[in-house]
Amino acid sequence: MSVERVERAGIAVEGISVAGIETCLHLPGFKVAVDLGCSLREVVSCPTVLFTHAHVDHLGAVVSHCATRALQHMPPPTYVVPAPVAGNVRRLLDVWRDLDGSALPCTVVPLAPGEEHELGRGLVVRAFATFHRSPSLGYAILSRRQKLRPAYQGLPEAELRRLRVEEGVEISHAIETVEAAIPGDTLIDVVEREELVRTARLLILETTFVDGRVTVAEARGEGHIHLDEVVARAELFENEEILLVHFSARYRPAEIRAALRANLPEDLAGRVTAFLAGEGP
Amino acid sequence: MSVERVERAGIAVEGISVAGIETCLHLPGFKVAVDLGCSLREVVSCPTVLFTHAHVDHLGAVVSHCATRALQHMPPPTYVVPAPVAGNVRRLLDVWRDLDGSALPCTVVPLAPGEEHELGRGLVVRAFATFHRSPSLGYAILSRRQKLRPAYQGLPEAELRRLRVEEGVEISHAIETVEAAIPGDTLIDVVEREELVRTARLLILETTFVDGRVTVAEARGEGHIHLDEVVARAELFENEEILLVHFSARYRPAEIRAALRANLPEDLAGRVTAFLAGEGP
Repeated sequence: MSVERVERAGIAVEGISVAGIETCLHLPGFKVAVDLGCSLREVVSCPTVLFTHAHVDHLGAVVSHCATRALQHMPPPTYVVPAPVAGNVRRLLDVWRDLDGSALPCTVVPLAPGEEHELGRGLVVRAFATFHRSPSLGYAILSRRQKLRPAYQGLPEAELRRLRVEEGVEISHAIETVEAAIPGDTLIDVVEREELVRTARLLILETTFVDGRVTVAEARGEGHIHLDEVVARAELFENEEILLVHFSARYRPAEIRAALRANLPEDLAGRVTAFLAGEGP
Repeated sequence: MSVERVERAGIAVEGISVAGIETCLHLPGFKVAVDLGCSLREVVSCPTVLFTHAHVDHLGAVVSHCATRALQHMPPPTYVVPAPVAGNVRRLLDVWRDLDGSALPCTVVPLAPGEEHELGRGLVVRAFATFHRSPSLGYAILSRRQKLRPAYQGLPEAELRRLRVEEGVEISHAIETVEAAIPGDTLIDVVEREELVRTARLLILETTFVDGRVTVAEARGEGHIHLDEVVARAELFENEEILLVHFSARYRPAEIRAALRANLPEDLAGRVTAFLAGEGP
């Protein structure tokens, strides 16, 4: 499978995402990856991985990632996981410590919906609830920076400095931008329930099924999203860009592109990209 | 990493083998793979995998292999492992059954040196002792077929049939051919100690280190083979063909080829191929 790379809303995304086969998405600008269903050379250097759930095709390469980083003398990685699976992820690492005879240094961070994990560099991960067949979690990446309050905008640098340092005026306030949201495998309900999903500059949304070969009801039965459900909620998406991922391996890329062309309303079509890495020709 | 394919001594070998990164070799003619350090699409259909030892870069993709086969409704695979690690491999599968919520149907077959595992179709796997840093096992693939005894060669089919069916004469006897030997990660000592290694039609031999950047003593300290040790034993190899695998990622393919050209005696050079899949350009 070949690795795909795109840049949307100024955010680079690289990796592979095919339903049931393997999913691993790398956002190098944030030094974060989402899921490790396979070992990608590009992701070895990534120190933080957010796991949406613990199915093999999303978490199967966690130990390879950890071992390869140790072999290359990189700092121990941090693995953020849905709180209910943290115990079994630690058991998995322990079995592998016995099998491999190595320390597999890493930190497992359990998160619950609403909880945050600091990435540094003004970036934070905030977890939100998703709805899949096994314990799952979505993640938003937020940037926080100081912005000048309107009353002080346009003043010279020296004056701003005087106000801030000598008079102790709070000339700026923190503003938060939802840079990206990655719900992972989930029912479409996450779009209605979670503002982070609707407002993220870049939404990376699974759309496992795209035509009538699998119905909306069947998609829901597997805990996945059908393109028809996205189309039915077109007006909810406030995102600058939407990257559709995790298509079923049954579709050829041409079929996926045709389904999007035929079904997406114009306003959405202009903001949507299909991430087709790993799909056949 | 790209998958390499070669055919030597009439035996096809495809896969990837880079020391410390990932090793997975598929012998499609025997429906057998050796090690699963990575998930290769070509190996999903392979029902039997022989594991030389349990390091992550040799066994890390076992659960992906099992889960992908189950998803594609293929029969449960058989995993042959060195007996001392069978318990931990079963623990690994159990943890994953909890994490993935799936049955992961498969059979784990522990083997000790000298023991055999039937592949059917007249093929059998025989295990032999190897010498690595963790419990390890080498494997030979043997074919068994009936061959006409010399006294009956040249007789017409009808006469042979009469002798066999009516007179009950044993006109043929079983002969055994050592088709391939794959010691896996090991000290060179396996060449002196194991006749299967010296006589297999195709020997697939790890040669992790090829020049002075890593000395013979250092190679031995890591439980690996240095090219100098192969050269020093050149007269021991009775194999039709030898495939050298598992080179350290520090070497570029051109460096490996140069080291082989400079060091292999002529008789060996004509029978040796470097398996360079997954190495950089």
